[in-house]
Amino acid sequence: MSSPRTVIRGGLVVTASDEVHADVLVEEGRIAAVAASDSSAARSWTDAEVIDATGKYVIPGGVDAHTHMELPFGGTFASDTFETGTRAAAWGGTTTIVDFAVQSVGQSLRAGLDAWHAKADGRCAVDYGFHMIVSDVTDPVLKEMDILVEEGVTSFKLFMAYPGVFYSDDGRILRAMQRASGNGGLIMMHAENGIAIDVLVQQALAAGKTDPRYHGEVRHALLEAEATHRAIQLARVAGAPLYVVHVSAEQAVAELAAARDMDLPVFGETCPQYLFLSTDNLAEPDFEGAKYVCSTPLRPSEHQAALWRALRTNDLQVVSTDHCPFCFAGQKELGRGDFSKIPNGLPGVENRMDLLHQAVVDGHLTRRRWIEIACAAPARMFGLYPRKGTLAPGADADVVIYDPHAEQVVSARTHHMNVDYSAYEGRRLTGRVETVLSRGVTVVDRGEYTGRAGHGHYVPRGLSSYLA
Amino acid sequence: MSSPRTVIRGGLVVTASDEVHADVLVEEGRIAAVAASDSSAARSWTDAEVIDATGKYVIPGGVDAHTHMELPFGGTFASDTFETGTRAAAWGGTTTIVDFAVQSVGQSLRAGLDAWHAKADGRCAVDYGFHMIVSDVTDPVLKEMDILVEEGVTSFKLFMAYPGVFYSDDGRILRAMQRASGNGGLIMMHAENGIAIDVLVQQALAAGKTDPRYHGEVRHALLEAEATHRAIQLARVAGAPLYVVHVSAEQAVAELAAARDMDLPVFGETCPQYLFLSTDNLAEPDFEGAKYVCSTPLRPSEHQAALWRALRTNDLQVVSTDHCPFCFAGQKELGRGDFSKIPNGLPGVENRMDLLHQAVVDGHLTRRRWIEIACAAPARMFGLYPRKGTLAPGADADVVIYDPHAEQVVSARTHHMNVDYSAYEGRRLTGRVETVLSRGVTVVDRGEYTGRAGHGHYVPRGLSSYLA
Amino acid sequence: MSSPRTVIRGGLVVTASDEVHADVLVEEGRIAAVAASDSSAARSWTDAEVIDATGKYVIPGGVDAHTHMELPFGGTFASDTFETGTRAAAWGGTTTIVDFAVQSVGQSLRAGLDAWHAKADGRCAVDYGFHMIVSDVTDPVLKEMDILVEEGVTSFKLFMAYPGVFYSDDGRILRAMQRASGNGGLIMMHAENGIAIDVLVQQALAAGKTDPRYHGEVRHALLEAEATHRAIQLARVAGAPLYVVHVSAEQAVAELAAARDMDLPVFGETCPQYLFLSTDNLAEPDFEGAKYVCSTPLRPSEHQAALWRALRTNDLQVVSTDHCPFCFAGQKELGRGDFSKIPNGLPGVENRMDLLHQAVVDGHLTRRRWIEIACAAPARMFGLYPRKGTLAPGADADVVIYDPHAEQVVSARTHHMNVDYSAYEGRRLTGRVETVLSRGVTVVDRGEYTGRAGHGHYVPRGLSSYLA
Amino acid sequence: MSSPRTVIRGGLVVTASDEVHADVLVEEGRIAAVAASDSSAARSWTDAEVIDATGKYVIPGGVDAHTHMELPFGGTFASDTFETGTRAAAWGGTTTIVDFAVQSVGQSLRAGLDAWHAKADGRCAVDYGFHMIVSDVTDPVLKEMDILVEEGVTSFKLFMAYPGVFYSDDGRILRAMQRASGNGGLIMMHAENGIAIDVLVQQALAAGKTDPRYHGEVRHALLEAEATHRAIQLARVAGAPLYVVHVSAEQAVAELAAARDMDLPVFGETCPQYLFLSTDNLAEPDFEGAKYVCSTPLRPSEHQAALWRALRTNDLQVVSTDHCPFCFAGQKELGRGDFSKIPNGLPGVENRMDLLHQAVVDGHLTRRRWIEIACAAPARMFGLYPRKGTLAPGADADVVIYDPHAEQVVSARTHHMNVDYSAYEGRRLTGRVETVLSRGVTVVDRGEYTGRAGHGHYVPRGLSSYLA
Repeated sequence: MSSPRTVIRGGLVVTASDEVHADVLVEEGRIAAVAASDSSAARSWTDAEVIDATGKYVIPGGVDAHTHMELPFGGTFASDTFETGTRAAAWGGTTTIVDFAVQSVGQSLRAGLDAWHAKADGRCAVDYGFHMIVSDVTDPVLKEMDILVEEGVTSFKLFMAYPGVFYSDDGRILRAMQRASGNGGLIMMHAENGIAIDVLVQQALAAGKTDPRYHGEVRHALLEAEATHRAIQLARVAGAPLYVVHVSAEQAVAELAAARDMDLPVFGETCPQYLFLSTDNLAEPDFEGAKYVCSTPLRPSEHQAALWRALRTNDLQVVSTDHCPFCFAGQKELGRGDFSKIPNGLPGVENRMDLLHQAVVDGHLTRRRWIEIACAAPARMFGLYPRKGTLAPGADADVVIYDPHAEQVVSARTHHMNVDYSAYEGRRLTGRVETVLSRGVTVVDRGEYTGRAGHGHYVPRGLSSYLA
Repeated sequence: MSSPRTVIRGGLVVTASDEVHADVLVEEGRIAAVAASDSSAARSWTDAEVIDATGKYVIPGGVDAHTHMELPFGGTFASDTFETGTRAAAWGGTTTIVDFAVQSVGQSLRAGLDAWHAKADGRCAVDYGFHMIVSDVTDPVLKEMDILVEEGVTSFKLFMAYPGVFYSDDGRILRAMQRASGNGGLIMMHAENGIAIDVLVQQALAAGKTDPRYHGEVRHALLEAEATHRAIQLARVAGAPLYVVHVSAEQAVAELAAARDMDLPVFGETCPQYLFLSTDNLAEPDFEGAKYVCSTPLRPSEHQAALWRALRTNDLQVVSTDHCPFCFAGQKELGRGDFSKIPNGLPGVENRMDLLHQAVVDGHLTRRRWIEIACAAPARMFGLYPRKGTLAPGADADVVIYDPHAEQVVSARTHHMNVDYSAYEGRRLTGRVETVLSRGVTVVDRGEYTGRAGHGHYVPRGLSSYLA
Repeated sequence: MSSPRTVIRGGLVVTASDEVHADVLVEEGRIAAVAASDSSAARSWTDAEVIDATGKYVIPGGVDAHTHMELPFGGTFASDTFETGTRAAAWGGTTTIVDFAVQSVGQSLRAGLDAWHAKADGRCAVDYGFHMIVSDVTDPVLKEMDILVEEGVTSFKLFMAYPGVFYSDDGRILRAMQRASGNGGLIMMHAENGIAIDVLVQQALAAGKTDPRYHGEVRHALLEAEATHRAIQLARVAGAPLYVVHVSAEQAVAELAAARDMDLPVFGETCPQYLFLSTDNLAEPDFEGAKYVCSTPLRPSEHQAALWRALRTNDLQVVSTDHCPFCFAGQKELGRGDFSKIPNGLPGVENRMDLLHQAVVDGHLTRRRWIEIACAAPARMFGLYPRKGTLAPGADADVVIYDPHAEQVVSARTHHMNVDYSAYEGRRLTGRVETVLSRGVTVVDRGEYTGRAGHGHYVPRGLSSYLA
Repeated sequence: MSSPRTVIRGGLVVTASDEVHADVLVEEGRIAAVAASDSSAARSWTDAEVIDATGKYVIPGGVDAHTHMELPFGGTFASDTFETGTRAAAWGGTTTIVDFAVQSVGQSLRAGLDAWHAKADGRCAVDYGFHMIVSDVTDPVLKEMDILVEEGVTSFKLFMAYPGVFYSDDGRILRAMQRASGNGGLIMMHAENGIAIDVLVQQALAAGKTDPRYHGEVRHALLEAEATHRAIQLARVAGAPLYVVHVSAEQAVAELAAARDMDLPVFGETCPQYLFLSTDNLAEPDFEGAKYVCSTPLRPSEHQAALWRALRTNDLQVVSTDHCPFCFAGQKELGRGDFSKIPNGLPGVENRMDLLHQAVVDGHLTRRRWIEIACAAPARMFGLYPRKGTLAPGADADVVIYDPHAEQVVSARTHHMNVDYSAYEGRRLTGRVETVLSRGVTVVDRGEYTGRAGHGHYVPRGLSSYLA
């Protein structure tokens, strides 16, 4: 055997299912073997480069199933390119992202997908796949869905919000779900009643309520719960599975829990901002609240307990970032005097693994559950497993050496995302990414970026295997 | 290293979390390494004895957390000794049992535990541990509980049924739960309202309703649900976790689901008889129904859907057997003319892995969930993980080579349990145990028993790590 | 005192709250007094005309809060005029109807209301009021709502079904609810997801599924439940009460029950057709199923138990008819070969009191609950109480002498509605209306119609007092 | 007719169902007639004594279905005799009480009932009936239950608390319920898990927690909810209705609501102390908390919202007092240094109608609901309707003229109960009883007591008609 081998020695290998003291052998970019650290098998791996993980965790690279690099929104673009965004992801221990290609109304899915491929190709630091945002459900588009599934774009996002932009009515949603039921695709849903919300937006603005905090008030928790319930019922009628993105309201969680109690194939994702931030942030003075404007909106902090509980009870299965950064200067400021013009989105792709480790430290989650919601479950959900999300033999050697005792302070001054603020500025965290392998190649080496644009490959995805 | 090595080649390694084509290396009775079958690492294991698993599953040995070998009940004894019972377990792919030592009223826990050790020591074909049945909660007994936890008997079963025998009232239950809350032990509960049931038993007998099927009628599903609810509330008051054994009623499942929705540390087990048999069996003529008398009783077949659903949604976590065989001739017959005198219990330790594989074939469970409920979850629940229940490096090499395509017909004529009937007589199953390793030693070799009494060791257990 | 007095002697006076053996004195069209039959007070009423009610029930005249006389639908008109329909109502013991005036898209509420006044004025046999169907929620229309409330049209019906005709989107619904929250009006909702249903209709027709029974299949129970849930959430956001019309699906009932458990001001009505008929009727051969086409549709008979239960537990408060008859010949037949062209609606205004009395006989309801759901609750709900719906002193003397022992067979040959079939043809009922007073005037006298067109007056209504 | 007639003129007659401006004619101790105040019928009643109720409410006399006059408890006796207690009831607008006769363990029901008759006979100011406390369920006692039902003692109270005193185990409860299912009696339940509570009591005392507030802590809300759930399930098994007394915990309310959602014949009562007082009172210093010691205990004030809501949604049907006064001096003081020795009980029979009217003023209840929960529902529930609890013709003329605008301050200095403190000392209330008729006889006349001991008669009761 001539290809280089690497062995990661002495760490605690933590996956969604197991915690073992084991050495991990990497061959040809894949996990070749895992052996008990004290076994003769492990000792026999003498011809490999050694990474010492003593006292560290050895975990699968993170899978962030919800990012929006360079997303056009409200006349501007998300400030991270695929280059800057995936590099920041690597720094944060995330080795796979699934971004959203966008169909424009009146255009084909293909046109949107091609455009996103063009943005990403040759620029990414880590591997990436695509979901497809479907803005215009028509007969030809339904047929295109089948083709995209074949090509590895196996999930389709629909919006019950943003009338006139991404919005689909219930008939279009039903038709797309029916199609997914047939071709194995997974429908992802932005579940907010945008038609009702837009009435409340106009009423608020007419009443002079223009500050960022009104963004949270008009996007009523009950209107998230309502849309979640509606999406579930439509999915039942269509016989299709459903994945609800960025769940933030306790009442929406209750709808998902009710569905799971019935053993329905209904899934939910939340994001770090809903777990760590609240309407208190939206109410920060001097328009600073605009930094925290995203949809679904941040909720009063009382909602957080329900989200943590649901992550433990598996009523929520995934934590993604919905990474969609806009600089405060020049971008968020577009909405001064009219909260509805603030671009929606937060930076976060670099912070997710660390924030969730902090949740382990704080007792919200076990270590295994940390890896499950951040790596294994998103990989299973979106057809990337077992290539991504675990350290099983045969998997891609996307590996993070994680120092659970290191201390850090989150700050825009030190982060690597291309945005002028951090949503978690000043927060002290315990735990830090030390070294990151992507398909066996070291892209972060003890805190130094050693990767390159273009190392990251496009990954066609299979069908969701979450229930397989 | 001179000790013999074994490598299991070419199978599909199925654990609770993963399905990988991998070779498994066994050294010194433990899993030393798992390597991708096509890796150079796997190819390098040339000095090992080879077991060919091509076309087979390679799975962890089963963990049956609920058996009653030689249990005294109603003036007779369960017909399997530790020797015959664990041998049958091995044939059925189960490599660890946790049996119940019994405290007699007025005796110490120690006396009961010693007696059970004496029965098992040197006789077992596979490894075994003990739970402790607490029949008499007193101050000294509470103190003994702490000692037993230290010794590796970390779970204690209480009964809300069987007044005058095993029954504890709610005050005693509360005190035991409080103690467990302090010492880390896990309370297991037989949840039936035995006080009310005994009234119904006497009324039925007085009314001439003496056939086996009345056993099912008087042990009302609502009285199982009631006791389940009560046990949960007592556990909440005590701040203790709870494990409910042999759940059979849909309404009891609903109580567990409600508790899990609240993120309470409340767990439940069901058994193959509740999944595959029903009151139709209890009503079999010529006293044949007596074969199916156990408590909780078999339920109308409509309850089965709720049990399967709960196994999928993780409202039930474990499938054990409650193996407690009594021969029809001479034992079950004690209850002719009075169903209350029929010894309670069914044989099953040999059938569990196969019946649950059939559930995979039938679409009730995924393969991974099969392994989870039959191996990993009971091991975690009862402090045996990761030594038992998985194939991770470092684990005991308890391994089953399982042929998923073999056909078999269950029958007392061919089974190995020491009982004169099978509860599943004539049932056709797809899938069969081929070879079984216990700590690296082949105890079943392509259908032939190659083990010996005394190979099985007593396993002191740690605290439950199900939520860790 | 010179005006004529009537005393109804010897009956069992049954109201929503009481059953008393009492004589009822009518003066000047109102209930003047109720006296114990054996009291000297009752005996002192010697100068009055006597109606002998011995052995009979004396009950309030029925209030049917949901009729559609002469409704234009699908190119034809409901076959009962206000003259024929209210005469049939009188025969059936109903002395007040609340019909629906219709706003056409682009027209004012006023125009619609005026048109309906013109249809009804001078033609009715019994008293009547109007709800307003709002088809086009605009700023001027919202202002008109305030005016109509002042005039006694205090309830407004919106549709989540029938896109392109009556349909309002969620924003319009929210705005109308907000207005009702301010002016005290009550929003009535046709709760079916018409957008999704229309997709299923087109798919069914495209697949050649054109028979009446497909009407039931495409109008999926989950899509009624979904819309019910959505309407409730929108009402919560608006801070408005809500009344859901013609509830037929068990799952929709569950949504109402959940709302009532939270003490929300959410109410529901069902209709006799959902209690007594089912999809079996829709599947009758030779296009006979068309007779039973209405929306919400008839459901499988398993849903009936939930409706009866909800009527007992007060999760449903009212039984109205949704009387909207179309002749089989020439009208229902418009939909041969295309179920979507069958005019939606059933006759029933004459049958309601009798069918619900049969429910008393069958043990579904108590006598008092019969009167509550058929008389008192609709009167309270729609601002007619205590003038209508009870026999309290001061109330309008709308009184029915009901023979609980008479037998009848329902048939189009004997009914008085202007429609060529009966939805209950051949059904044997126990109980029958004997005599009916409307404001003290006998309009049905021992089975003979003695009323006249124009006796019935328009009744302006107050605000809902159901919760007062 | 020579007997005197009384007419109550000009008031607003408020019953559970109606509010009408009417005159009420009383003849021979009964309600003879109710006539519209402006009717000629009313004007014709010229030969009667007139009570002017202009500007007042005319309401049915209160029915307090839960009192304990002279109850022996913990070595002392409740301080109100039937004479003082029923006189105070009259002052407070309550004209019927149902007290609890007590069976002592080992004695017959008859002996207990006779003893209570002897205490009450000839001493009461208002009418009274008896429930029977069953402390010792045996075969002869079950037979006695049938006889008592025939005699008009149609309800039987069992205790899941107080082991060694009133406690019945689940088998005895089940047997009593079965008997009630057969004879039409109603089982009333003190639902607290007394076996578990007594463990907590002993642990608290052993830990030096002896103050009154620990009474609230050891009687855990979950142990009330548990017992409530258990009682419901036992009632379902027995096929019997159930009435749960003095519900105080939100979680117990939830159990009742779940039962009512299933249309089970399960009912609940709460008491003013749970609606207006809380654990804050139990924590009053200087042993003053002892004044508020009762069981079930007062709960944290957060529970009150659930009780009010349940009273509105009819998940609780009745408000009784559980009047059981013990003087602070000499009686409550028995428990200094040991809360378990504080006699359990509060005074309240005089305050109930006023406190609940205050709830009307405060917006918790409507006027009609006030009368329903305080008069009509307890009368129906316990077989006194329509003789008691309403103002329908034929009913007993138990009538209260209530001044809704009067102001009062509750105080032991001014109340008429024989106890040295008021649980509501200093509380300002709007509304006051002005005049009270008992069977047509004025027993309170504009605030002056004009009754006499012995006016009150024993009232044999019929079966519960709550669901009739």
